[in-house]
Amino acid sequence: MQFQVETKKKMEILDITEQLKRILPEQGEGALLVHIPHTTAAVTINEGADPDVGEDLVRHLERLAQGKYLHREGNGPAHLQASLIGPSVLVPFKGGKLELGTWQRIFFCEFDGPRTRRVQFRLLAGLENDEQ
Amino acid sequence: MQFQVETKKKMEILDITEQLKRILPEQGEGALLVHIPHTTAAVTINEGADPDVGEDLVRHLERLAQGKYLHREGNGPAHLQASLIGPSVLVPFKGGKLELGTWQRIFFCEFDGPRTRRVQFRLLAGLENDEQ
Amino acid sequence: MQFQVETKKKMEILDITEQLKRILPEQGEGALLVHIPHTTAAVTINEGADPDVGEDLVRHLERLAQGKYLHREGNGPAHLQASLIGPSVLVPFKGGKLELGTWQRIFFCEFDGPRTRRVQFRLLAGLENDEQ
Repeated sequence: MQFQVETKKKMEILDITEQLKRILPEQGEGALLVHIPHTTAAVTINEGADPDVGEDLVRHLERLAQGKYLHREGNGPAHLQASLIGPSVLVPFKGGKLELGTWQRIFFCEFDGPRTRRVQFRLLAGLENDEQ
Repeated sequence: MQFQVETKKKMEILDITEQLKRILPEQGEGALLVHIPHTTAAVTINEGADPDVGEDLVRHLERLAQGKYLHREGNGPAHLQASLIGPSVLVPFKGGKLELGTWQRIFFCEFDGPRTRRVQFRLLAGLENDEQ
Repeated sequence: MQFQVETKKKMEILDITEQLKRILPEQGEGALLVHIPHTTAAVTINEGADPDVGEDLVRHLERLAQGKYLHREGNGPAHLQASLIGPSVLVPFKGGKLELGTWQRIFFCEFDGPRTRRVQFRLLAGLENDEQ
């Protein structure tokens, strides 16, 4: 399943944690796979309390990707950034709750916006005989 | 389970999507874990239509890893690149198809070739009571 | 479930492979999700035979994160490093053994220590009708 996000800038970090919390089953345990089906966007987990953390992430990814690119569409840096951050996160859940740390939030990362983007997700099963 | 790939250059991006498609079950849903059991190689998802995207990835990872290394085997940059890109991808599937975006392909990343390399995979189960 | 690690430096790479091996079930197959519930730490897989590889990783992540940060807590570089390396690894297992490559070890990555940190884990189920 999936939902959409609308990005408004060339590079932008959007907190999608609340949308993802709603799709968890009330019982059982496993892991939530969040997959971004784009090649110039990504998803990461980081601090959400201070928006400067996301802004720092954007600025430093911009810095790290500076240089020349062969790819003629002009979004070469966004493709590099997508592979550096990665197209998915996998978060454990139990009893209807994501097992994130106190400061962790899940962020959609736009590297070539503004665009309408999709966020795919899939619930994966915990091992039945997991007695931990 | 696993299959092999033969790399021909020091650094190389190889599209392994077709080999991975063949191992999916015809029915059911879950996620395909692709794990690279090497410490100087990795796996990523990016655009496959324009081969320049992979070439850009190689060149910029080479740039980002420049500098001095303590590791005496001469492949210090490859170890850094392996951790920056990561040893695995996890892709949702359903009804025999990988749920990749239109432009997404799965790439084996060689950082210290040429070598014979292994690609491991494991099918993970979707949650049975997943009604989304 | 989880266990704790105590880090002793600002930046440090700690091998946690042995603790993780102990939590595997003797039978069955699936994947072990290792999740770090912190925003200035991460987890990666790399070579463990030569400790210089971990030291190189620390030094080059320090280099890559140099520059100015808006985040006022002084640990801006650690937040960037956390997103570059990522908060989780997913390792296939079978018959009580992690399916790591010969040289692969799992490392907790401290980027803003010294601190007491948590390592969360969850066993995920392999697909039952997986005949590969």
